[in-house]
Amino acid sequence: MQITPQQAAIELLSKDNIMIISHMSPDGDTLGSAYGLYNALNSLNKRVKIRCSDEMPKKFDYMYKGYVDSEFEEEYVVCVDVAAVQLFGSKLKSYTDKVDLNIDHHPSNELFAKKTCLVAKASANCEIMFEVLTHMNINFTSLIADCLYTGITTDTGCFKYSSVSANTHRTAAALIEFGADYAEINRFLFDTKSKSRILIEQHVLNTMEFFYDDMVALIAISNKTIEETNAIESDLDGVSALPRTIEGVKIGITIREKSTNCHKISLRTTNDIDASEICKAFGGGGHQRAAGCLIEENYETVKQMIVKAVEPFLT
Amino acid sequence: MQITPQQAAIELLSKDNIMIISHMSPDGDTLGSAYGLYNALNSLNKRVKIRCSDEMPKKFDYMYKGYVDSEFEEEYVVCVDVAAVQLFGSKLKSYTDKVDLNIDHHPSNELFAKKTCLVAKASANCEIMFEVLTHMNINFTSLIADCLYTGITTDTGCFKYSSVSANTHRTAAALIEFGADYAEINRFLFDTKSKSRILIEQHVLNTMEFFYDDMVALIAISNKTIEETNAIESDLDGVSALPRTIEGVKIGITIREKSTNCHKISLRTTNDIDASEICKAFGGGGHQRAAGCLIEENYETVKQMIVKAVEPFLT
Repeated sequence: MQITPQQAAIELLSKDNIMIISHMSPDGDTLGSAYGLYNALNSLNKRVKIRCSDEMPKKFDYMYKGYVDSEFEEEYVVCVDVAAVQLFGSKLKSYTDKVDLNIDHHPSNELFAKKTCLVAKASANCEIMFEVLTHMNINFTSLIADCLYTGITTDTGCFKYSSVSANTHRTAAALIEFGADYAEINRFLFDTKSKSRILIEQHVLNTMEFFYDDMVALIAISNKTIEETNAIESDLDGVSALPRTIEGVKIGITIREKSTNCHKISLRTTNDIDASEICKAFGGGGHQRAAGCLIEENYETVKQMIVKAVEPFLT
Repeated sequence: MQITPQQAAIELLSKDNIMIISHMSPDGDTLGSAYGLYNALNSLNKRVKIRCSDEMPKKFDYMYKGYVDSEFEEEYVVCVDVAAVQLFGSKLKSYTDKVDLNIDHHPSNELFAKKTCLVAKASANCEIMFEVLTHMNINFTSLIADCLYTGITTDTGCFKYSSVSANTHRTAAALIEFGADYAEINRFLFDTKSKSRILIEQHVLNTMEFFYDDMVALIAISNKTIEETNAIESDLDGVSALPRTIEGVKIGITIREKSTNCHKISLRTTNDIDASEICKAFGGGGHQRAAGCLIEENYETVKQMIVKAVEPFLT
């Protein structure tokens, strides 16, 4: 059963002993939604706890500061920003058929909850959460504003993507008026890199090669690079987007070493080139502009294969 | 005499044969203001021309498409986003005392025009221009929306900086509703780099050194690097911000070669360290978080001098 943000608000107001579930590998939007909702319900003197299969990332510490954990038997289960039951993760698997309300913005939502408040045109789940909390008539503290602003800015690349709407900006305007520390949040999320990340960029830029009149750019990430830079997985986020950001480049290729004779390829293309079609030839797949595949060969062979494979798509 | 956006609108409606002046080294905000205003006045069948001391950057081509240049004797001179008369540049020097109206958002505006519409709290001049055009009751085309959106997104780093207000977001919301091609504009302005720029980054990352437990990071830009990468001045925009973006770095130093025995230093610091005070010791200056100076020594000597000079500020 699908319900509106206003109906979700009315339902939440009538419940207590609430458990909020964030999706596994939690990002700014699922956490912003969870902690924003937690603080709102808490201000109404309800008992609330947040659960997630994975650890909460340290970088979102500023959102957790109003949180006091408690153990109690939940009477109502809400999940936030969870499109499919696989995203509950191993620790929360047993809850997939016990969700009373799911608040989500993914068009692909599987409607597995008893009630789903799905607004597929929302740029971020926190944009919906703002509407829900507004209908709940709660007092927007600066902490709640920080949580919801974080979800919106992380899911939209700081208002950069086509998913942004006029409503996204109007929500941000309201959150700024409620005291969101937006400049500090953005500086921290978008203008701060770990030392490992900057060293990774140094390494991969040194591997960069251009082909076909600079229409194709290729970078490599070797295990040696990862060792030498002490990089963790999150340091690699977005690295494969690098080659395609170069003016004139239509296909960006990233070759990531899995082992000496196995490499993962990530392709990024411009609108007119179907990345998933190129990767399909190697048993991979993905989206129009971003796709991937695995090739069980050494680096030089893999490079030759993929560079040759993209040529017909450059007409 | 200072006037409000509404008064500026009334004045503009009563004039014809208008010359609009953008500041030298034109950026997205002065050009967005000029071309936005041009198209608005043009739709009211007024004769308008835009003048600038420097050439219009090709990257803003999409803003120029409605522009038809004409020569006529101007009866009314407006300048946009021009804080001081020095910013007219050499070609337009003769106009500095002939400005009827200046629309600007710089707190430092010298009030050199007959009338000044100054809104110092505006994040971008285009935010004021939106208000002026709204009071003029013009028909906002998608081209005008593109122009004004460009000014706002360039001056705020895509809504990232502390200069952004709730009003900035509400203006962006309206411009999106008027058809601004925001996702394409942002992709192009923020997610596209020239090949020279990416090669510059490769070169400077290879020069990166860390000092004092990684609290200081230093990069160098040599003339050789600039030659080898075919970089032009705009490729260097923001490069000096790089070292300070690294987590834990309190002082970022960029040493730019002017000649073998002369180097320009750019310092970027965190809030608690006064960059201008450090640079003052070398006859330079600037702001709290960004300052510079010139040292007439060879690279190695300059490096030693500045690294030693910053140490006392790291307590």
